[in-house]
Amino acid sequence: MTISLEAARHVLQAQPFSQLLDAELVHFSDAGVELRVPVSGQLKQRYGFVHGDLISYAADNALTFAGGAVLGPAVVTAEFKINYVRSAGGNALVARACVIHAGKTQAVCRCEVYSVVVDSEIPCAVAQGTIAAIRAHDGR
Amino acid sequence: MTISLEAARHVLQAQPFSQLLDAELVHFSDAGVELRVPVSGQLKQRYGFVHGDLISYAADNALTFAGGAVLGPAVVTAEFKINYVRSAGGNALVARACVIHAGKTQAVCRCEVYSVVVDSEIPCAVAQGTIAAIRAHDGR
Amino acid sequence: MTISLEAARHVLQAQPFSQLLDAELVHFSDAGVELRVPVSGQLKQRYGFVHGDLISYAADNALTFAGGAVLGPAVVTAEFKINYVRSAGGNALVARACVIHAGKTQAVCRCEVYSVVVDSEIPCAVAQGTIAAIRAHDGR
Amino acid sequence: MTISLEAARHVLQAQPFSQLLDAELVHFSDAGVELRVPVSGQLKQRYGFVHGDLISYAADNALTFAGGAVLGPAVVTAEFKINYVRSAGGNALVARACVIHAGKTQAVCRCEVYSVVVDSEIPCAVAQGTIAAIRAHDGR
Repeated sequence: MTISLEAARHVLQAQPFSQLLDAELVHFSDAGVELRVPVSGQLKQRYGFVHGDLISYAADNALTFAGGAVLGPAVVTAEFKINYVRSAGGNALVARACVIHAGKTQAVCRCEVYSVVVDSEIPCAVAQGTIAAIRAHDGR
Repeated sequence: MTISLEAARHVLQAQPFSQLLDAELVHFSDAGVELRVPVSGQLKQRYGFVHGDLISYAADNALTFAGGAVLGPAVVTAEFKINYVRSAGGNALVARACVIHAGKTQAVCRCEVYSVVVDSEIPCAVAQGTIAAIRAHDGR
Repeated sequence: MTISLEAARHVLQAQPFSQLLDAELVHFSDAGVELRVPVSGQLKQRYGFVHGDLISYAADNALTFAGGAVLGPAVVTAEFKINYVRSAGGNALVARACVIHAGKTQAVCRCEVYSVVVDSEIPCAVAQGTIAAIRAHDGR
Repeated sequence: MTISLEAARHVLQAQPFSQLLDAELVHFSDAGVELRVPVSGQLKQRYGFVHGDLISYAADNALTFAGGAVLGPAVVTAEFKINYVRSAGGNALVARACVIHAGKTQAVCRCEVYSVVVDSEIPCAVAQGTIAAIRAHDGR
């Protein structure tokens, strides 16, 4: 059930959207995950992604990986809530998520998203949500 | 303060991410908005967007446009919550949002996202959030 | 699995908090539920309940009963989100909730809470949440 | 604008619902607040409050006080979201909330609710929401 950082990175790389955004899984363990998304890279320049979309992408994915670290690889975000607290600037977004409580089939997780501006991190969003294990036999 | 459908479409087209996704604003009025995102277009094929990201993008943007229809063009999503109820299939997503209550500076909005499968619409997510007018003088 | 209005009312009456508030289940079916809470009754006068608490109570309970109408009686609110849109006045609160989507073990529901002022209803909150069936064998 | 612990306690005591529940403000500063609600007191016994309602009450109020500690006394909860992670037992609930980000008119806050079981604290819910300053002239 436990997934290595390397295996989790393969999952992330298999998401074409994450590939497009050059997202990187910096940490991955049942103690928490860190996802980094460059904001000023070539693709960003080319497509000019709106920050709000990037922030929401980063939060949702970090929550999912945090849940996956305890529930196993077959997980989806069932629901989440995000509060944007500041517009994102800088050259990268960092989303850190951890599990608050995990049952057998679901985990409640929390996430903080920061703008990396030079050497400091500025909070730009907080999120909270439920990650659910996908069960083949279940009608959920 | 009121924005025409045409003006709102220009705002959408000015978002490179929306451009990339070929998102289209089908309806836009203070009675509600409808945003349509093709799922099977060439770009979709090419980048293989994860449905979860698309759904969240569609919900967030429909909420923002619904709020903008009553608050004016300078708005941001302050917070939102989304419940995914079914994985999205079909050839398009349709997100419909409307304002539940608007004050002078904020509007609480709701959104439903559907998968368009041939001729029927299948609910895939529901969202609820707060859209805030951006005030130049405000520290929010 | 299906519960009658009468059986559902017994469940409500067995909640001492609902009893204290004189809450009444007006409608109860898988098409939706309606919960009514008097605001100006003797108990209200005596304890002077803060409206915010009453609104949140009404929303949470209406969501749970809506989920219970399709999932069966052994349900809990797993999570919910509420936006207060106006302070509540009048002589009663009415909370109407319905199921957006139900699987075997969970239902995503929505709720609107209104202040009843003389003969008109004024929206005071909207809520959205997940109701989960309690499974004796499950660690959730 | 800054409120002392003593002044904040007066605000809490003026809420008849909080009085009924014997809620106590243990800490109150712009670094965070702690609200304690006895679960086994006489009133609890008498009215048999459902834990879900108590947890939601504690979370909502702790969020509001956390926001009030930075925004001033005239605040309301604009919206919040709560995930229940475990049913509450023990002899008290402790809700700790802090501000994640505050502007001039709003603060985004987070809260954790614990069951106090003998000497240990067991997480039973997490919440996140927006506290808004009430402005007499504003149509919010």
